[in-house]
Order: sequence, then structure tokens, then C-alpha cells
Amino acid sequence: MHGQNGIGKGTAGLRLGLQMGLQVHGGRVDLAASLYPSAPKPWIDLSTGINPVPWPVGPIPLVRYQRLPLASEIAEMSAAAAKAYGLPANARMLPVPGSELAIRLLPRMIGPGRVGILAPTYGSHALAWREAGADVHELAGLPDPDQDDCKTLIVVNPNNPDGRVIARAELATFALKWTASGRRLIVDEAFADVRPELSMLALPELPVGTMVLRSLGKFFGLAGLRVGFVVASEPDATAWRQLLGDWPVSGPACEIATAALRDTNWIAATRTRLAADRKRLDGLLGDAGLRLLGGADLFRLFEAPDARDLLDHFACAEILVRGFAGTPRHYRFGLPADEAAWRRLEAACATLM
Amino acid sequence: MHGQNGIGKGTAGLRLGLQMGLQVHGGRVDLAASLYPSAPKPWIDLSTGINPVPWPVGPIPLVRYQRLPLASEIAEMSAAAAKAYGLPANARMLPVPGSELAIRLLPRMIGPGRVGILAPTYGSHALAWREAGADVHELAGLPDPDQDDCKTLIVVNPNNPDGRVIARAELATFALKWTASGRRLIVDEAFADVRPELSMLALPELPVGTMVLRSLGKFFGLAGLRVGFVVASEPDATAWRQLLGDWPVSGPACEIATAALRDTNWIAATRTRLAADRKRLDGLLGDAGLRLLGGADLFRLFEAPDARDLLDHFACAEILVRGFAGTPRHYRFGLPADEAAWRRLEAACATLM
Repeated sequence: MHGQNGIGKGTAGLRLGLQMGLQVHGGRVDLAASLYPSAPKPWIDLSTGINPVPWPVGPIPLVRYQRLPLASEIAEMSAAAAKAYGLPANARMLPVPGSELAIRLLPRMIGPGRVGILAPTYGSHALAWREAGADVHELAGLPDPDQDDCKTLIVVNPNNPDGRVIARAELATFALKWTASGRRLIVDEAFADVRPELSMLALPELPVGTMVLRSLGKFFGLAGLRVGFVVASEPDATAWRQLLGDWPVSGPACEIATAALRDTNWIAATRTRLAADRKRLDGLLGDAGLRLLGGADLFRLFEAPDARDLLDHFACAEILVRGFAGTPRHYRFGLPADEAAWRRLEAACATLM
Repeated sequence: MHGQNGIGKGTAGLRLGLQMGLQVHGGRVDLAASLYPSAPKPWIDLSTGINPVPWPVGPIPLVRYQRLPLASEIAEMSAAAAKAYGLPANARMLPVPGSELAIRLLPRMIGPGRVGILAPTYGSHALAWREAGADVHELAGLPDPDQDDCKTLIVVNPNNPDGRVIARAELATFALKWTASGRRLIVDEAFADVRPELSMLALPELPVGTMVLRSLGKFFGLAGLRVGFVVASEPDATAWRQLLGDWPVSGPACEIATAALRDTNWIAATRTRLAADRKRLDGLLGDAGLRLLGGADLFRLFEAPDARDLLDHFACAEILVRGFAGTPRHYRFGLPADEAAWRRLEAACATLM
């Protein structure tokens, strides 16, 4: 098979490159291709939690590129997001050019200090706070709100990569206590589209000091669009508004996001499809001897049965999966896009046995 | 004529609305249309300095919306910008999702304090610093670098709206002295595409502490795309890189910007066309009794011969021009897009006489 050329390239240097580059963030197919140059393209990228069947983007009128997005267009997009996600009565829906930028700006908005992060989770949170000079504490679960001295707490719900969830009612009760003394709670709901019953945005009131992050990248499969939302109450909402200005996203992105968020039929059909594909993935990898640790309907975390390097195994079949530097037997798999991709994944799994 | 319906609507309340909304920033055609509801569309928007004939955007492959922009794609776009604009040997070309966001982030990067701004100029600079709590001082010209106690100085070159320019050699000499004591110099070159001989980016070395802003919105006519660049040397370059992350612009924007910046034939032809159109605009408005105060090839600033409200006059002809709250007889005009727009502008000028 083609991949055996790649195995021959799997020297210590390449493995180091994989560890350095491919265990930090998913989606680095260009890096994978450079490390496995003899592998025939196209690569199948299962290294992200991005829906591989995106909302179908149509042609964009040239005027959207030409002129600044109108205030009315930004307002319509925010209203579409509020309708799709929910919006507490005291909160505002604030568009951002990708939730990643919001993650990086948070330490600048709040100021560094002691921050708690429910770990393990998406690495950008800790990175952004450390780069801003904050004292980052990784926590295994919600801290005691009466005792913990963190100024800010970050919770990804449902969590990436392990799918850990905190029920809405539990998190809402915690949020009220946590923020009562002026502390901030950041709830990253990047994958909540597939678990809407968890979202804080269905609360009638958002506890002041709580900020919720949403992303169009994952569920809608539009990671390249760089559109997300911060939901916050005052005074944080005004601070975000001032920081991001009148044109927080591009004109084309505004048009696409508005239409995608309003497409209730697509949203419902996609939730159903993702749930079915997730079950198929669990079955396939379970049959191949991997043990399911958790996940959401957009990604699944598995433990390998032995110390074999599965990042290398699948890369040799031109399939990029996600490894984790700290837990070498853990692998995260996204969903294949189509039957051809499923068949290649099945073939790569067959050689694992 | 149609516009006379609009004149009838020109009550005190509408004039207040115009002053509040249309003298703050150009491009608010939606606001103008709401204030002049009986005016037939389409409005001609001359209220901005945006090239009305944009670089011709073609279809975007769906994959650019789907996946995150690759590191190699971001690097190619930055290299294309460096080739088009120039890049000092010690500086980095850092993409930003619109130079407006860079303007708003600057006080967060540098920290507030006493900031000098060469005035009058683009209003977002002063607004961003004031909102961040800085002490803003408007200056009529470059301060004495030995005496001024500002921590940061902001220069727009060529300046908007009056076209004031500072020669590159003069600004470079000043920059070396100004930044020697650790102060920052921000040079906003949003309109330097039509005056490349002014740009600091042709310097072999950028004085450390100098940051240059560029925009794809104006010259390329792609304001809706939200792509700009910050050029900085270390340590500022790393600080920007950390703040903006691996995906500072969207995938489609990255593809479009790369192709536009590489299109040397379009760039040369556009410089020639803008210069010719600018001369035509000067002639037309001069013949109508307006006095040219200055400008660049993308916009011209005129003084009205009397106290008549020209914002209202042109709005009644469905032409949006830019007024300024502090100098009510000053009006900025952008360039008409095509012969039909030129004819409507000529007709509106004829009724001025």
C-alpha cells in the first residue's frame, strides 16, 4: 500500500516533527504532507472537530467585498445567532472574527492574574493567558466558589477533547456563586451546537461576569470563515464592542453566517447526521481495538490498546488524526466526510488488528 | 428632480441625524437612506476614500471556507504584501482582520498614557485611545522629539481627510529620534498605495518602536474583506503575533488578498486611473465653486463657498458625501465609480451654481 512509503520515512526526526506540530492543534494537513512527502494526496483530515460537510456557501455578491458591512447587516447576523443559540435577556451577542481571537483577547480584556482552567482542554486558552503573563492553574473540576482564589475560571462545555459535560443547571448555579464576588467565568461553547441542552444561552439571565464563546467553525464546518460570537452582559459587552468596532467580521462572512444561522432545516438534519456518523465511528474504532474515552458528536477520544504510534499508522494511510503530547496513547478522531473517506478509514483500521 | 422629495424631509431632526451619524465615518449609506426615505435607490456613495472599482474578486473554492487557513497560505499572503509594499529588513509583515482592529488594539498593546495624534485625521485613532483611558493630545505637526512627553505618536501619512504628507526622509529622521527613548510611533499608511514614495516600508531598517499600518480596503476597493497589515520589528512583532494567533484573517480573504497584492498590472493601471479621476473631480467641483483644500488620489477635501449644507444638497440627489462636525464648510468627496455616477454628480453640481 502507498502508506508503506510513509512508514519508511517515519524516522526519529519526523516523529519529533509530528509531536511538535501535530499534537498542538488539529488541521495541520500541510505539515503532515511535508512530513510524509511520498504519501499520495489527498489527505483525509480527521485531526479536527470540524464538521466535514459544511453549510453550503453560495456565490457572494461583489458589493459585500467592496463596502464595509452595514450596521443593519451586523445586527441581522447577531439576531440570527440569538435565535439559533438563545440569548439571555441581559446579554448581548457580539460578533468576533473567530472565537480564537476572543480567546486571545480575553486576558487583555480582563487583565492577567490567577486563572483557573478545567483541564485537559483546548490548548489555546492556557497559551493565551500564559503569554499575557497570567498564573494559570489547571483544575480537574469546578472549584469551590467559596475558597478558590482564581480571578477567572475557564470551562469548555462540552469539553474538547474528552467530551466532559457540565449540566446547564449545575453550571448556572456555580456561575452565580462564582461571579458574585466580581470574578469572571468564561464558558467556551465551541461544540455546544451538538449539545444545545447544555448551553448557558438558554438561561433567562446570564450571571454578570459570565462570558460565553460560540463558534461558526465547528458545527457549520466553516472554520476558514473566522466567525464567532462572544455573549456578555454589561459592562463587558460594551468593552468588547469598543474593542472590536463597527466591522467585527467581513462583509462576505456576515452574509454567510446570517444565512447559515437561519437555516433551521440544515441545522436539524446536520445534528441527526453527525449523531449517526459518530455512532458509526465508535463502532469502527471499537472493533479495531480502541477504547472510547468520550467526545461529542463532532469528535471522539480513544485510547489505543498498546504503545503503537497510531498517529504514524494513520498518517501512512494519508489519514491525519490528532495525538496529544501528554497522553501518548490517546487519539482524537473527527468524522469522515463521505463514503470514500469511510472506506479508507476502514482499510487503515483493518491493518491495525 | 427626485431629490426634491428629499429636500422636503430635510427637517431639523434629519439634519441632527446627519450630523450625528454621517459626520463620524463615511460609508453609512444605510443611515443616509433611512434619513432620506423618499430618495430612489441606488445611492452613490462618495463619503469614503475607497476605490469604487475594486480588484475583481473571482469565485472562492469551498475548501477555503471549510478549513483553517494554512500557515503556508498566511506566509504567502504576507510575502505578497512585502513585495507590494516593501518591508524593512528588521520588520515583520503581520496580517490583521482589518486595520481598524489594529487601531483599536494598539492602546491594549502599548498601554494607555499620553498619546499625540497629528490632527485633524481619521477619528478612530483618538476614539480608540480615549476609550482605553489614554490622555489624547491633538498636534498640528510633528512635535519636538527632545521635548514632547507623549509616550506614543500617531501620524496618518498621507493624511485623511486633508492629504497632508510628510516626506519619508523627514519622517524617518524624526522616527529615529522619537523612538530612541523607547517611545512608539504609529504610521497609518491606509492611503499610501497612491503615494508609495512616502511609505516607511521602503526603508532598509524600521526604527524600533515604529509600527506601520496598511489596509487592503481603500486602494484595492475591498473594505468589506477586512484585511490589513501591521508592520513592526521586535519585540512588537511577536506581541502582535501572539495576540492575533495563527489565523488572523479568513481563508477566502487570504486567497483574495494574496492574488490582489500580486496583481502588479492592476495596481499600476489603478494608480493611473485614480490620478486621472482625481483630476476630473477637482475640475468638476472647482467649476461648481468649491475650493480644493487637499487630499490624495482616493479622496479630495473641499471648502464650500458659503454656509449652504452641501451634505443635504447632495443627499437630495442620492449622493452621499462626507461632512465634518467641527468644520461645517468642509466636505470630502470620493471618486465616482462609472460614467453614470459622474453624470449624476455633474447634475448635482450644476444645481449648486
